[in-house]
Amino acid sequence: MSILKRLPRIFDRSHEYKHWPGLIKAYKKWLPVTDKTPIITLQEGATPLIPLKSINELIGKNVKIFVKYDGLNPTGSFKDRGMTMAISKAKEDNCEAVICASTGNTSASAAAYAKRGGMKSFVLIPDGYVAQGKLAQALVYGAEVLAIKGNFDKALNIVQELSNRYPITLVNSVNPYRIQGQKTAAFEIIDSIGEAPDWLCIPMGNAGNITAYWMGFEEYYKAGKSKKLPKMMGFQAIGSAPLVFNKTIENPETIATAIRIGNPVNKEKAFIVKGKSKGKFTAVTDKEIIDAYKLLGKEEGIFCEPASAASIAGLIKLKEEIPPNSTIVCVLTGNGLKDPDCAINNNDASFKNNLEPNSDEIAKAIGF
Amino acid sequence: MSILKRLPRIFDRSHEYKHWPGLIKAYKKWLPVTDKTPIITLQEGATPLIPLKSINELIGKNVKIFVKYDGLNPTGSFKDRGMTMAISKAKEDNCEAVICASTGNTSASAAAYAKRGGMKSFVLIPDGYVAQGKLAQALVYGAEVLAIKGNFDKALNIVQELSNRYPITLVNSVNPYRIQGQKTAAFEIIDSIGEAPDWLCIPMGNAGNITAYWMGFEEYYKAGKSKKLPKMMGFQAIGSAPLVFNKTIENPETIATAIRIGNPVNKEKAFIVKGKSKGKFTAVTDKEIIDAYKLLGKEEGIFCEPASAASIAGLIKLKEEIPPNSTIVCVLTGNGLKDPDCAINNNDASFKNNLEPNSDEIAKAIGF
Repeated sequence: MSILKRLPRIFDRSHEYKHWPGLIKAYKKWLPVTDKTPIITLQEGATPLIPLKSINELIGKNVKIFVKYDGLNPTGSFKDRGMTMAISKAKEDNCEAVICASTGNTSASAAAYAKRGGMKSFVLIPDGYVAQGKLAQALVYGAEVLAIKGNFDKALNIVQELSNRYPITLVNSVNPYRIQGQKTAAFEIIDSIGEAPDWLCIPMGNAGNITAYWMGFEEYYKAGKSKKLPKMMGFQAIGSAPLVFNKTIENPETIATAIRIGNPVNKEKAFIVKGKSKGKFTAVTDKEIIDAYKLLGKEEGIFCEPASAASIAGLIKLKEEIPPNSTIVCVLTGNGLKDPDCAINNNDASFKNNLEPNSDEIAKAIGF
Repeated sequence: MSILKRLPRIFDRSHEYKHWPGLIKAYKKWLPVTDKTPIITLQEGATPLIPLKSINELIGKNVKIFVKYDGLNPTGSFKDRGMTMAISKAKEDNCEAVICASTGNTSASAAAYAKRGGMKSFVLIPDGYVAQGKLAQALVYGAEVLAIKGNFDKALNIVQELSNRYPITLVNSVNPYRIQGQKTAAFEIIDSIGEAPDWLCIPMGNAGNITAYWMGFEEYYKAGKSKKLPKMMGFQAIGSAPLVFNKTIENPETIATAIRIGNPVNKEKAFIVKGKSKGKFTAVTDKEIIDAYKLLGKEEGIFCEPASAASIAGLIKLKEEIPPNSTIVCVLTGNGLKDPDCAINNNDASFKNNLEPNSDEIAKAIGF
């Protein structure tokens, strides 16, 4: 046996890939689950880590940039990583209903996983500030959707109070199992490229994800799976940047609704991550976000939601500070299909309609 | 070496999964590519095969039902499987521009992969009959979008003519590389469950996908990777069912816009597949499609586009014919986020808005 263990992986033929079972089964020994935990999964995780091309050229310095495209999780955002854990643990505790406040992605994920686990879900959203695709999801997954006159921060206060008062499990990122599930994205990055990146660029809303990534990077580092730790580079929209300006923003505003949060619940943790990783928090404008969003689509063939593009916008903004030959991973938190209106209103494409269906007319329209 | 080959896979630890490189690299030896082919990829494929729960109970007979959730491909539909092949081969041939007719999914995929490969893309769509998310994608990916007064079938005639007349590569499913890429979905199913299913339930529009799946099942069967072949069960919307009624439909109509095609280009091939597999083609109503769509969302936590739900609607319709103890795979071709309007107009969720942001009012609204 010991000899076999030292042999190269001769069985590892290029066409043989194991079926991905979802992140809890894949990373079981790193997660607070036991054989008794019922695993509620939609096979989340194992999302593509896609090398960029054009944006590398824009930055130069021989940098290698990847995007972690977490918009290809089952409900279209990174939230599924935490939700499979939160809902599985809620099921283990015989919980019958869950509640969350959400700018849209958490509610979609909570609703889907709750249904999968046979539970009810209640979601509080800010009326009029949730992208169309996300609202569609919560409805299709059969959540009870409550739209309040007020922003995310108000909604979060209410659900925290209700979960204290009634027998209903809170599944926002204050739920510790959420962060546990989300940390697996850092594991996947190291498993894919064999080392931690030099920079990890990530959008920040409630700051649960930056906390989770750091936890994952630290755990793998301590276990000898990587030889270094990344600098954690967090980005917020300038009209909604409580962590950049270190103050609560009463009325946060940005086109990137997923990070329209003025009082992040994981604020203290985020500052610790910044300090320990020697990272930096930076604000980007809505215009910079949209420019990055368009660049990803039309140059790289990748469609993310506006909030996700904050990581690319931030990277471009800090390009003078990037060390030559760096490896950088930018997190794309959500699928562009979540917010089709934003795409239709922000693109450089040519769109001609009402054309006669004959080939001569079309040839002319194309320029032949 | 020969002794080692017969040993069990002792290196196969549960937490070790290889990074998925996209379907061309994963299934290279099964595909018409060489070391010279430039691989244009967004890491498509390896989509979840999710076991259902509630719908199994509805059908009974101890059946095991999985959905192949191809909506988690990079542009949200199965089209990416064929497009990575078609665009890679077009690149190998030094092609500079591609063209397609589309009900929306092909155009999104063609645009994304063309951009990734540094090519231009032209897409012809039926004006007013493309779901919002799909139009958003084509625009974001920087396609030149031409909306014609006419349906898909007219658009396909035009692009076939133009690709014959001008130096521009056609990437509809008449392009033989498309089918080659798409057949990998059948490989993945067998690789996941170890055998071909008894039934493969699939929506049919242009009938490229049923042709591709059959090719994949046959190739794996001939190579000894499976011991049986599935019955191929194809489903169409009743207002757009040329293959069920064996006649061209001049003005196809259905809520499932992705399969709103009256004269499928792969018609002959589809009939051969039906015959060889001892399968069956069946029409389902728009109401049956929407019922199945809602069921998948609210019972299973899975959000697909309406056309995809035709495979589940069809399975339910044929439930008396299902052999006991069968294993069935239903193909979900596209992501529900492609068509948010359909979700917002077709759900059984509770939606309350304009609520005061205080916890007593919310507690009351929830029913505490």
